[in-house]
This record gives sequence, structure tokens and C-alpha cells, in this order.
Amino acid sequence: MLRLLPIIVLFVLPALLAAQHPVTYFTKAEAAQLKADLVKYPLLKQSFTEMKTEVDAWVGKDVDVPLPKDPAGGYTHDKHKANYTLMFHAGILYNLTGDIKYAKLVKDMFLKYAVLNPGLKKHPQATSSSPGRIFWQALNDANWLVYTGMAYDLIYNSLTAAERKKIEEGAFKPEVDFLTKDLQTWFDLIHNHGVWACAGVGIVGIATNNKDYVDMALYGTNKQGKSGFIAQLDGLFAPDGYYTEGPYYTRYAILPYYLFANALHRAKPELKIFEHRDRILQKALLAGLQQTNLNGAFFPFNDASKEKDYTSNEVVAAINIAWDVYGKDNGLLLVAKKQGRVTLHKGGAGMAMALTKPGQTPQYYPYRSVEYTDGVKGTEGGVSLLRNGKENNLSTLIYKYTSHGLSHGHFDKLNISYYDQGNEIITDYGSVRFIGVEQKYGGRYLPENKTFASQTIAHNTVVVDERSHFDGKESTAEKYHSHKLFSNISTNGAVQVVAALDSNAYKNVRLQRTVYMLQLPGGKKITADIFHTTSKEQHQYDLPFHYNGHLISTSVKYQPFTNKQEVLGQKNGYQFFWKEAEAAVADTTVHLTFLNDRSYYSISSLITGDAKLFYTRTGANDPDFNLRHEPSWIIRKNAASHTFVNVLEVHGRFDPVAEFSSGAYTAVQTVRLLHNDEQYSVAEIKIDGKLLIIAQCNRQFDPSAQHNAAGISWTGPYTVLYNGNKL
Amino acid sequence: MLRLLPIIVLFVLPALLAAQHPVTYFTKAEAAQLKADLVKYPLLKQSFTEMKTEVDAWVGKDVDVPLPKDPAGGYTHDKHKANYTLMFHAGILYNLTGDIKYAKLVKDMFLKYAVLNPGLKKHPQATSSSPGRIFWQALNDANWLVYTGMAYDLIYNSLTAAERKKIEEGAFKPEVDFLTKDLQTWFDLIHNHGVWACAGVGIVGIATNNKDYVDMALYGTNKQGKSGFIAQLDGLFAPDGYYTEGPYYTRYAILPYYLFANALHRAKPELKIFEHRDRILQKALLAGLQQTNLNGAFFPFNDASKEKDYTSNEVVAAINIAWDVYGKDNGLLLVAKKQGRVTLHKGGAGMAMALTKPGQTPQYYPYRSVEYTDGVKGTEGGVSLLRNGKENNLSTLIYKYTSHGLSHGHFDKLNISYYDQGNEIITDYGSVRFIGVEQKYGGRYLPENKTFASQTIAHNTVVVDERSHFDGKESTAEKYHSHKLFSNISTNGAVQVVAALDSNAYKNVRLQRTVYMLQLPGGKKITADIFHTTSKEQHQYDLPFHYNGHLISTSVKYQPFTNKQEVLGQKNGYQFFWKEAEAAVADTTVHLTFLNDRSYYSISSLITGDAKLFYTRTGANDPDFNLRHEPSWIIRKNAASHTFVNVLEVHGRFDPVAEFSSGAYTAVQTVRLLHNDEQYSVAEIKIDGKLLIIAQCNRQFDPSAQHNAAGISWTGPYTVLYNGNKL
Repeated sequence: MLRLLPIIVLFVLPALLAAQHPVTYFTKAEAAQLKADLVKYPLLKQSFTEMKTEVDAWVGKDVDVPLPKDPAGGYTHDKHKANYTLMFHAGILYNLTGDIKYAKLVKDMFLKYAVLNPGLKKHPQATSSSPGRIFWQALNDANWLVYTGMAYDLIYNSLTAAERKKIEEGAFKPEVDFLTKDLQTWFDLIHNHGVWACAGVGIVGIATNNKDYVDMALYGTNKQGKSGFIAQLDGLFAPDGYYTEGPYYTRYAILPYYLFANALHRAKPELKIFEHRDRILQKALLAGLQQTNLNGAFFPFNDASKEKDYTSNEVVAAINIAWDVYGKDNGLLLVAKKQGRVTLHKGGAGMAMALTKPGQTPQYYPYRSVEYTDGVKGTEGGVSLLRNGKENNLSTLIYKYTSHGLSHGHFDKLNISYYDQGNEIITDYGSVRFIGVEQKYGGRYLPENKTFASQTIAHNTVVVDERSHFDGKESTAEKYHSHKLFSNISTNGAVQVVAALDSNAYKNVRLQRTVYMLQLPGGKKITADIFHTTSKEQHQYDLPFHYNGHLISTSVKYQPFTNKQEVLGQKNGYQFFWKEAEAAVADTTVHLTFLNDRSYYSISSLITGDAKLFYTRTGANDPDFNLRHEPSWIIRKNAASHTFVNVLEVHGRFDPVAEFSSGAYTAVQTVRLLHNDEQYSVAEIKIDGKLLIIAQCNRQFDPSAQHNAAGISWTGPYTVLYNGNKL
Repeated sequence: MLRLLPIIVLFVLPALLAAQHPVTYFTKAEAAQLKADLVKYPLLKQSFTEMKTEVDAWVGKDVDVPLPKDPAGGYTHDKHKANYTLMFHAGILYNLTGDIKYAKLVKDMFLKYAVLNPGLKKHPQATSSSPGRIFWQALNDANWLVYTGMAYDLIYNSLTAAERKKIEEGAFKPEVDFLTKDLQTWFDLIHNHGVWACAGVGIVGIATNNKDYVDMALYGTNKQGKSGFIAQLDGLFAPDGYYTEGPYYTRYAILPYYLFANALHRAKPELKIFEHRDRILQKALLAGLQQTNLNGAFFPFNDASKEKDYTSNEVVAAINIAWDVYGKDNGLLLVAKKQGRVTLHKGGAGMAMALTKPGQTPQYYPYRSVEYTDGVKGTEGGVSLLRNGKENNLSTLIYKYTSHGLSHGHFDKLNISYYDQGNEIITDYGSVRFIGVEQKYGGRYLPENKTFASQTIAHNTVVVDERSHFDGKESTAEKYHSHKLFSNISTNGAVQVVAALDSNAYKNVRLQRTVYMLQLPGGKKITADIFHTTSKEQHQYDLPFHYNGHLISTSVKYQPFTNKQEVLGQKNGYQFFWKEAEAAVADTTVHLTFLNDRSYYSISSLITGDAKLFYTRTGANDPDFNLRHEPSWIIRKNAASHTFVNVLEVHGRFDPVAEFSSGAYTAVQTVRLLHNDEQYSVAEIKIDGKLLIIAQCNRQFDPSAQHNAAGISWTGPYTVLYNGNKL
């Protein structure tokens, strides 16, 4: 099927390329309708006014097009970024107002780029393997092509043939040639940078009626279809829309897809690009939105800035286009409302209109329990989001058993995170980066991103012998993925469960984790976590819980390091933890209670045999003050095989304004393993005097098989009993 | 005047004491009007419904009145607290609905207290010098009297004579006797605990028609007027309403004043209690509200929980009563709107009505630059709040040169704090306490409150020789106060300045600090801080800046402690700081830039001669995990006399969602002292190439005197020049 496509396309292209302008962002007819809508829908009007105010400040001015010099966050970087946005926006305003001054503003800037670009060499601050010319990395040059391509198309009709020639040959050709020739391998890579590159070259191709550019964009530099935009659509997302780098990069990755698809939708409707691969672009967008916290922030899997949320420009553009092509979706309306702006596009107008109708916009995004698969075929593990609770009382347990996630992946097989009431509770550090801040390494990823944040110990999963998964080697990690063993999820179900296995992160150590998100009668929220490590040799197993909150109490007698602090370890991320206290414990249940915002959270951990506990805080070996200082609780066990059983309870209420605290103690009293062998684990958790029993299979997951262990009989991979009754 | 009052009062009392009930909270006529208003004003209706829902849950139930046993946060403590609130609320509902079930609920509980109270001895958890009986401290017993006193009055008419006798003799008399006899000295103290005690006994006196109680409440146990409520009104606030313990305790202190005054207003209108001392109760309330951050949190001078804001119940009650007696105040409307509830009181109804009128409620509290004096006569130093900027862009510089602040005072003479855009920037730690959290020392002040938070090094002021002001002795500190030398403040003025002196915190060391809040042409916000320490002997002077944010860059080459951390010092609070880095510097200007939320902040410091810098973080010597971990920058200078010149700049913008950063570098280039001697200091601050000159007098503050130094001529205590022109 894919191999046939290029031929069909080559056949119909010539006729289309001489088509009307504009066509890459909106058409003349759409612009006329938008103009009429402006007066009708307040949010559209406001977005128009904001854009106009911003652009009007530059009309008649000689806009600087500086010689590229600075890294991200520096003057020339920010200026060129501001310039392409200004050109795109001025182009839109030209079409919506008919005022030639906007077209002139864009044209004058283009003529400067037409002089600048032919002489550019590799950017002086280039450090990446794909250096840019206008910017330090080629990715930003591709961004520039996307926006200036649309800007050019938007003012195309105002230009003389001579001006067009000057711009096409001076401003665009050197950049397109650079990306498609000098950086040909990079351009043809199936990777989110490649999507931007294709979108840039493709949009410029449509804008300049250049069939060669469009063909390369769609089917790769050699036009065979193994690379290029169609291959990117087929090769970068899982069938259900999950993007392997994680939701933070989904947000970024979908923008060029949506912008180029938006252009193709108008210029080459016969491609039916938005229907491609069973509406993969819609799935990707919705998967990205499901992977957000109540406040709209993307869950920080892999490299991710925790501050990034769905009000970012990328998502504004994508949901507006999605509204246009996929139709009404009330969840998107909430997102648009929080964004507080729409694009000046048919879809933006549609959302602005829908927002004027009362009662359609929900108060919360329609979050649900959901599982995504990883890998192009959906066969490379995945991630489960277990959800419980309504509105602001929502809890989310994230269980990640994906593949590595390309160059932005972290070494965190079987990692879990927990959110409650919009707050991070059991946390993932995210990335070490201050985006755009020049003093912090030019705004790029800081060295600690590799040495700390991507290492296993920075996550809530087992570290064996103080070595990261795959020894921290991306090339090895990329070869493997974890496997889901079984799961049963349903939003607000009393029992939600996911089990997964990883047998590649360490040689000869099998990691298997089963997490249960439970709601007891009466509403108590309990998460149980059974983590098996299996090996023939003796190992040191560390299971950390990175928590967000103030330690309120712990049941353990510990040795605090009060006058002098030393580091937890020497390498693989361990060197970034200060040891605040440690304890030796044996054959018991230990508890840690912390306060986050207005609620208490307790971790209760089964200790079998001897174990050590560490109370740590990040910030050691951080001479440049790049890290946040956050607490962790680490359970260390030396054994050949071991089963960690941990229980997280959400409890109580703290009201510092009314000066009231209730339920500050965990109801979990003891955690025991009634039975534990290769076949079965049966855990008993005593809660307020009542028994919660979890019986599970460890090897056999047939839904109809019968089992019996520790006096419990059940069918299928697991059963959960509370106070004698099946939950 | 004061001495005459008791006589007049004794004369008119008998007639009044047989008056109608209810009268302590509202009258029968007011209740009828409230009932009519309920249907008219949504917020009043909602507050009524909330109260009814809460109380209805207990109607017909046998409410527990347990034997006192637990500390704050424990069951019996919380239960008795919940009980008195329930009784008060049920009493209100009885009057608003006429339903006898509410009166019965209150009566049944009273009858239990009538059995319990006569047998009570000192509370088993009592640790304070004023132990309680129902609660661990007498203060809470006084709270109980206030609310149950009103509850009794509210159901008085429903009781038989026998029931009244039982309750008055069983529930009230033992408690009143305990406070006025066993704890007579405490009852007669001029202190906020004493206000609660007077209010409790006085309200019970009015409710039970007991003249003796009312007299003791108004004029002290010996009824001479040197103690008691009137003396508390005269002796606890400065003439402008400042309360010496600080705004956090203002909030708490005003409630019993307002509640008892509200009762007296109805029962003894001839006292004109709300007009007393030129409306001191209105002044105290408004002073408390001015001392809040944009988010409504009280500035954390002295012992203070930072989470406490003006939505607390105390402030709800006070502003509603204030609205009733002092009339309309749009600022209060904003507070009521944020509180989201009103009391079921004439004032609450008035505010609920006003909130239904569009356009009256401002979006922000009307904050302004203001100075408060400390001491009953306003002669014991004070505090200046300098403000600049509109709406959310408000900056506030707090300069504290008060007296000590009683038992909740901190050793922080000449301390400054800075707020911007609703965020704490240069911070005061507040108190070390988790109010209500039983695991944290029963919810009481933690030991670190004395050993750390109240010590000088925990504040932004000079510490001499690593010893706290007054050597950390409250009894010594209480004898002295700082002095304001001169000031010139006006909200949004380009130059606002306050100078103050302290010569008692250390023997033979004079501390003098002058702070300038400046707005340069174009809007740049600069704060300049000139701090003189003068002595004949050599000393070590430490000036810390406790900041809230992530360190972005510092101009200093420093030695980071990456593998091992040690403490900054051994005592007087120094033992709680980890040394993260240190640096030796000489004759230069050093800079520290940090990021808070969406803005950058830089401190630029003049270094004359040799000095040391410490980059620290709190959390050392904290075996119980009681402290927050917050960064500080400490400048250390060894000298006999020294002048610290520091400049704080608010600059730039960080937008992690749009991935944009601008103005991340401070514009301040160099700081110099052009002239510095006993008479004059002339500082030169180079900002973006332009010169800001501050010339000030250090001894002579005559507004008309002429001065000349470093080639600058000026009149009065100071002048500020920018780019050659007077600012």
C-alpha cells in the first residue's frame, strides 16, 4: 500500500501545484468567513486583537534580521524565532484585513533573509550532530521554514514575480538545500526533528509551487517513501497514538504533523491525510491530552519540563485544526477555554463559537483509565494510566513499561508515578533543563540530565547493584522493551491492576511488578505494589520512592546525619543524593507519612529479613546549582531474589487556615506475604483491623485457570479480598 | 477617665443584666431580619445551608463529650473544639429556624459538660505555664467559654430555670472560677490570651446575667480597670492599630475583641465599645489586612504560619461585625468574596447584600505604602510597608524596626523582606510548626522554632559574631526597640525610603539601615539597601539574604561542597544551615540571580576589602525533619565598622510554556561607595550604563539642612539621582 502511494501522487501533483494562494494555512474563502466571524465570537476577536497589537508594534519598523551568533536564549536566537512568528502573523493579518502594510512588513523581512541566508555556514554555537545555520540546531531552522513558508504563501499574491524569485532563491533555497542535502541523513530520519524538516520543506514547496520540495517532504529525499512525511506518520506513533518519546514530546511532535497536514488537506485533499492510518493524528492528540495532570501539565516521562502544559502554542494550533477536521469534542473545549485563545483559522473560529454556547464545556478534562501501547505496531510494551476519583479528587497511577523512547528516553523500566488532587505525589524528576535560560547552558539540556535525571535511581523502580538499566546505554536500551503480563483497568473500578515484566534491563535478573489501584468500601484509596526481583546470584536491590511533600513521621528508628552529610553513592546518579538518614530494619512493616498540600500520604513497606532504609535528598554533586532538592525514601535489600511489597494510602485532611488536621495517621497497620513463590504471591494488608488480601499468579495468566494458595482459591491471574469479600 | 468608668458601669449594670436574650451575638429582632434576608442574598443563603448541613448531621445524635486526654490534634482536643462550634452554630439555627431540635442539641451537650467540668483538674497533656482543663492550655478553655457562652445565650429562652441552674453552675462556674481564680495572674495579663479569657468570662457573664463575671471581664479580677477588656483595648495595640506580635497574631487577637465587643454593643451600648480609643478595633483590623500578601496570606513576622490567610474564620467574623458597626468598605468586600462565606449576623447579611451589587468589589485589596508604629503609645519603633506597582504586579518591601513582640517575637531588628507578584522573594522563615498535626509535637511550636526560626540568622539582617540580637534573650529584647530615623513613603512614588537605627541588639555595635524602593524611568524596580554596622572593636558581621527561587547564576568563583556538606556554625541558629558553597571575594561587586515563578531577581552586592560569601540551605541538624530546605546567600565581613550596600533588581520574564526567556541578566553592573563616613554615604549604582546615585545623611535628618558630599549637593536627609536628574 505504502509503495503504491508515491506513484499515484506523482501523477496528480503537477495540476495542483499551480493552484491558488493562500492554501497552506487557510484559503481565500476561509479568510473571508473568518473575517465575518471575528465580530461574532469573543475569543476569536480577542485572539485577533492580541495578534494585531503584537504585529502593529512592528509595522513600519526596520525589523532586525541579525547575523546568527547566539545559542538558545541569546539575542539572535530569540530574534529569528520572533521574526518567523511575526512574519506568519503579519501574513494572516494581511489576509484578514486586506491591508498591504502587513504584506510589506513580511516582504521586507523576507528580502533581508534573501540576502542573509545564501552566505550562512554552520552556526557558531552549533554543538548538536545536526547543526543549524540560522539557529544553533537544524531543528530550529526547520521551524523557521514551516512558519516562513506559510507566511510566504499568505502574502504570495502581493508579490511581483521578481520579488518571488528573490525570496524563493535567496531565503528558501539555501535552507531547503541545507536540510535536504547537507543534512540528508538527518532529514530522512524517522524522528520528530525529521517531521519538522519535512513539514518545513513541504510547506515551502506548496507555497512556492515547487513539486520537487513537496515530493521530498512527502516521500524522502530519494522520493521512495521509506522516509518523508507519510513514513513519519506510519513510523513514529503506536497504532493507538502513543508517541515513544512520551507526552512532553508528543505535544512538540504533533505540531508539524498538524501544520503540514493542514496544508496538505487544502493543497492535496486527495491524500486524505487526516484519515491516514485510521486517524492517527487524532489519536496522537487525544493520547497526549490523556497523559496530562489535572492542571494540564504533561506527565514528565523521559526528558520533560514539568512546567509545560496543554496551554502551549503547539496544542492550541493542533486542537483548532483537529476541531476543523475531526469535529466537535467537548474535552477539547475545556482545553481551549484554559488556553484562553484560538488560532485565526476555521477550527479556531469553530471552537470560539462553541465556547459561546453555555453548558457544553466541561469543568475537567474527561480523564479515564487507559492503556497505550508503544512501538509502531503496538508490540513494544506500553504505559497504563489508572484513574480513580471524580473532578478535583482524581488520583492517577502511571505505570510505564514502554520501550526506551529514543534519545529522550530514561532508564526507567517498570517505573511508577502517582498524582492526586492535581499534585505530584510519587514523582518523576523530569528533565534537568531551564528552557530558554541562557545562563543555564544556553537553555539546553544540562549535563545532569544524562548523569542524573535519566538514570534509573532517579525513578521509582528497582536499581540492581547501583547500576542503571542497560548500564545506562541508549543503544542497548533501544533494543528492548518491557512486556505487559496482564491488566484489568476501568476508571473508578474498585480493583484496577497491571502487571509487567522486564528481563533485559539487567542480565540474569528478572524484574516483575504488579500494581493495584484499589478503592475500598467507604472510599479509601489504596495502591499496592508487588515487585519481584529474581536472580540466581546475590544482588543489591534498591527501590526508591521519590515523594513530594514534607516528612511528617516514620515508624523507623533511624540514624540522622545532622552535622555532616555524605552522598549515597559514587556513580550512575547515586552521587546526586545526600544521605539525610539511614536505618537498619528487619522482618517488619515500616511506614513513612508525608504531607502534600492538604492531604497526607503514607507508604507502608513490608521488610522481610534484613534491609536498609535511606532518607535522601537530591542536590549533591551539583556545583552549578542545577538540581531541585527533593526527598526520597529508598529501600535496600541484599538477596538473590526478593519481593518488595509496598502500599500507598491517601488519607486525612490538613487545613492550615482553619487550623485543623484529621486522619494524619495511616490506616495501614501491617503488610505480610502469606505465600510467595515462583507461582503465586499472596499479600495480606491489615487496614484499620480489617484484612485486605491480594492473591496473584506470577507465571500463569490464563483468565480461566483455577488457583489456590494460602487457603485462597481464585480464577484468573489475581483476586482481591477485603474483609472476607471479593472487592 | 479610665478610673471613672467602673463606677458609672456599676450603676447601670443591674438594669441591663436582666435584659432580653439572645443579646451576645444577635438580638431577636436581628434574627428575624436575618431570616428574611436569607432568601435574598446568595452568599448568606449558602452560608446558612452549609451551617445547617453541618449541624443537621448531629441532630438527634448523642454527641461525645469526652474526658480530656489528648494534646492539640488529638481526639479529645479536636472533639471539644468541634463541640463548642457545633453548640454555637446550633444556637444560631435555633433562632433562625425556631426549631427546638437545635436548642435541644445544645442543651444536651451543656448538660454533659455540666457533669464533666466540675470534676476536671489540670489537663494531662498540659505543658504551658497556663494549663487548661478541657484542653491542654487555658487559652483553648477560654475559646470554649466564648462560644458556649454565646450558645447558651442563644438557647436561653428554651431552658427551664432548673436547666439554667445546672448549666450555669456545672458547665460554666468551674471554668470561670478556674480562669479567674486559679489562673488569676494569667487572666489579668495584658496579652492576647487574656483577651480571650476576658471575652469568655464576659460573654458568659452577659449570657447568664452575672454582673460579677461581666465586671471581672471588663475591669480585671479586682475590678479596678488596670486589667480586663478595656485595659486590653488600651494596652495591646499601637494607636494606629499595629499589634506588637505581628499580623499573624493580629488576626487571632482581634477575634475575641470583636466577639466580646459585638456582645457589649448590644448588651451595654452605653460603653460605645467600637468607638473606644478612636475606633481602635477598626484600625487593628485594617492594619492586619494591609499586612497581607496579594494572596491574602499574613506577612510572617515573628511566629507565624505562612499558610494562614485572611480567609480564616477569625477574619470572616471580624469583617462582618466591622461592616455592621463601621459601615461600607469596598476593600472588605474583596476579602469577603475570597472568603466565600459570611457569618449569620447582621454584618454578614450586609456584606452578602453588597456582594450582589455589580462593580463594587475591587479585584485586588487596596494595598498602599503604609507605616505602623509599635507600642501602646506608638513610640516603640514600627514597621514600614513600601509598595510599588499595580494589581498583580505589586511589589512590597517590608522593613521591621519594631519592639520585640512578646513571647512570639523574633530576634530580627532591622529585618527586611520582599514580595513581588504575590510571591515571597526575600523571605522570613515564619514559625516552625505544623498546626494541628499531632505527629509534629502535638501540633505545637516545634523546638526549632526557638533554636532556629526566632534566631537572627534566620532573618535578613546583620548578625554580629554569630550571636543573635540580645543574645536571644526575650527578657532583654523586650526592654528595647529600634528607632525610625526618617522616612518618605508614598505608594508608587519613584523614591520611597525608610531609615532606622538599633543600638541595643548588641552592646557597643550600632546597626543602621536605610532602604530605598525605587522605580526608574521606564518602570525598572530597584531596591537599594545601605546597612551600617559601627563599632570600636573588630567583629564578624554576617548579612544573609534568604531567597525563594532557583539559583540561575552568580558572578562569583566559588568552592562548592559537592561530596560532603558541613554546617555553617554551631549555635544560635547557624547549626541549621548546610554550607553548599563558599567564596572569598575582595573589592568588587558580586551578583546572584535567581528565578522565582516567571521572573528573575538579582542581588548585587558591594564588597569592600576582603569578604566571604556563603551559599547555604536550611535543613542541617534537623533529625526530626521539621525544617523546610531553603537557600540563602550570606555576606560575611570582618571589620570594626562596615557598610553593606546591596541592590535588588526585579527583571526579565521566564515562560516555560511558551519556552521563552528574556532579560535574564541583571542590569546592575557595579555598586560603589563614592563617599562613606559618619556623616554621609554616597552610593553609585551603574545600571545599563547609567548612574543611579544615592546620597544620604547618616546622623542629621533635618529636612531643611543643606549637605554636600562626593560633589553632590542636597537638602534634607537624602537625595536620589538617576542619569543626572533627581528621581
